[in-house]
Amino acid sequence: MDNFNFYSPTEFIFGKDTENDCGKYIKKYGGTKVLVHYGSNSAQKSGLLDRVCKSLEDNGIKYVKLGGVKPNPRDTLIYEGIELCRKEKVDFILSVGGGSCIDSAKGIAAGVDYEGDFWDFYCGKEVTSALPIGTVLTIAAAGSEGSGASVVTKEDGMLKRDTGSDILRPKFSILNPALTQTLPAYQTACGITDIMAHVFERYFTNTRDVEITDRLCEAVLLTMIKESYKVIKNPDDYQARANIMWAGTVAHNDIVGVGRSQDWNSHMIEHELSGLYDCAHGAGLAVVMPSWMEYVYKHDVMRFAQMAVRIWGCQMNFENPEETALNGIYAFRRFLSDIGMPINFEQLGAKEEDIPVLIEKFGIGDGETGGFVKLKAGDIEAILKIAAHASV
Amino acid sequence: MDNFNFYSPTEFIFGKDTENDCGKYIKKYGGTKVLVHYGSNSAQKSGLLDRVCKSLEDNGIKYVKLGGVKPNPRDTLIYEGIELCRKEKVDFILSVGGGSCIDSAKGIAAGVDYEGDFWDFYCGKEVTSALPIGTVLTIAAAGSEGSGASVVTKEDGMLKRDTGSDILRPKFSILNPALTQTLPAYQTACGITDIMAHVFERYFTNTRDVEITDRLCEAVLLTMIKESYKVIKNPDDYQARANIMWAGTVAHNDIVGVGRSQDWNSHMIEHELSGLYDCAHGAGLAVVMPSWMEYVYKHDVMRFAQMAVRIWGCQMNFENPEETALNGIYAFRRFLSDIGMPINFEQLGAKEEDIPVLIEKFGIGDGETGGFVKLKAGDIEAILKIAAHASV
Repeated sequence: MDNFNFYSPTEFIFGKDTENDCGKYIKKYGGTKVLVHYGSNSAQKSGLLDRVCKSLEDNGIKYVKLGGVKPNPRDTLIYEGIELCRKEKVDFILSVGGGSCIDSAKGIAAGVDYEGDFWDFYCGKEVTSALPIGTVLTIAAAGSEGSGASVVTKEDGMLKRDTGSDILRPKFSILNPALTQTLPAYQTACGITDIMAHVFERYFTNTRDVEITDRLCEAVLLTMIKESYKVIKNPDDYQARANIMWAGTVAHNDIVGVGRSQDWNSHMIEHELSGLYDCAHGAGLAVVMPSWMEYVYKHDVMRFAQMAVRIWGCQMNFENPEETALNGIYAFRRFLSDIGMPINFEQLGAKEEDIPVLIEKFGIGDGETGGFVKLKAGDIEAILKIAAHASV
Repeated sequence: MDNFNFYSPTEFIFGKDTENDCGKYIKKYGGTKVLVHYGSNSAQKSGLLDRVCKSLEDNGIKYVKLGGVKPNPRDTLIYEGIELCRKEKVDFILSVGGGSCIDSAKGIAAGVDYEGDFWDFYCGKEVTSALPIGTVLTIAAAGSEGSGASVVTKEDGMLKRDTGSDILRPKFSILNPALTQTLPAYQTACGITDIMAHVFERYFTNTRDVEITDRLCEAVLLTMIKESYKVIKNPDDYQARANIMWAGTVAHNDIVGVGRSQDWNSHMIEHELSGLYDCAHGAGLAVVMPSWMEYVYKHDVMRFAQMAVRIWGCQMNFENPEETALNGIYAFRRFLSDIGMPINFEQLGAKEEDIPVLIEKFGIGDGETGGFVKLKAGDIEAILKIAAHASV
């Protein structure tokens, strides 16, 4: 096991009707003037935004609102948010939405007190101060409610880049699974895929003897498989929604990733897909990740066999572990297809002839990337070609 | 799944040589004058205390020392610590030791700014302020390094009582598995038992549909079983020590307990054993917990069968789940015996004729206690009688 730091100071308030307490928690964490940041019209239509604002008013907290966050959140809205916060002397940001909304809020939070361009933080500059953030989560997916990470897309060129800092971790996150019950099946499945991908990025490691982290990864994945079939069949299943929502947070605050090297190449490759086609991140991952597995599994056949046996319930073939490893990968792809995810370029709306463009945008040049298996441009091309033609 | 709050703000610094950074972290969390609190002579003999003090000096932090913490930490030393902190104007407490040392530090931290008797907090009064605490952990067991809980024994009458508050959660905890390599096998096994008991207290619940928490419980327990056999065979196995140490923290910061009712009767009953006989808490649990399981398993045969199959690797008997349930309980007791734990009164040094005294000290009267199965005095008597004569 490698040395590590683990720090997850966010207070999580989980369960039915908890959004009505958001004013109380903003008060607890010192907010007096709040930017309420939200996305699509659904928060408005469902009455969620009204309930949130009422809770602020009940607690004597002033606020301004800024909506319009899109999936793959854009730099343009963040610039607008920063200006608004400065003008209105905002001292706390409340995100009411999913991962895109939280990531946008983090960009604003980092930029308000910074004299330069906030985009610097997405090009490698360290975040050293930020406004405090709270979240009311409406989609189980990104895990941004419990992480210090943020991914933003620069509209000019559709460049998708990320940043991360403990300073950007939300002070509190309110998780009411009932708020996710109205999500369409496709978006729900995209979230499920993202959650599972966050675990797999950590599961595939070259570090030995990290049984506790392995087992915690498997715990989240076993839960996701069981509960996902339930929620796709019955979107109103509160209990399944609850298990998935909490699993989504556990999957990405790094409790399932400590003490080991991690990979993250599937995420890196997918960012170029959703950057170019503006598709859902989870959908892109469903196409990329099993293809990445097929390309790299020979690097550590027994680890993929462990995945197959412990997570997908495959029988171990002791005479031919490679067969077991492949069966696990196929089981993952079948699962993704079962829950309605695309598994190849055609289903995603991507084009094989764009592969050179995707690699160009990746910007890898002659370099290499990734923690489990180092990939060069040619490897990424090969993975995208598998992804282009994959089938169950 | 029940509504819940989860809050674990402690920063964990894990791995080799990390104790040399303790001064840096005290500085980060605002300490300028520290009480270094420790237990037996081992921290002194091993040179650990010197390394800790050197790190404080290197960071320009003043300190006073108070040693002498015993297992089942006493109120008397806490009174002494409170006086010392007031006299020396201490603003941060650093515990260098195991769970008893941390629990003692928490008692001191709560008492320094309190005008009344600190024991009030162990009799139900809410902790509303406390000095900040850091820990350098030397035993994997209690989980106190990541919790807000503290258990203290009042020397007058050997009354063992607990308190808990988010305010008492350590600011940081330094976990170096190498520091536990010198622990005798018996103490190591006591710690293992305590860690597993913390999970089982949460595993046995009446709340349905908490798959994620179930699976996380099982992840910790599966890890403990595998790594425990390794560490008992080879005490110098750093990797096994590392897995157990981190599992011990995860087992008790409540990540494996959220969203559900919990039990805690085995702990309550054991506190009277270690209170009366001054035995190790883990040893007492090894005697009590399987006996508690045997007494209550009919309340939810399928949950015990789940434990047997998922954790102990038993084959499910679909015609007779009760047999599977019992096989799981027997497997647990065999495991405890395998790692050198006592499993009955004689091996623990307890006496069957003391059972009425134990129940009297429990102070349950005509009441009942526990979250999974409510127990009355007669039930506790029956469990202790099973414990008195248990065998593998």
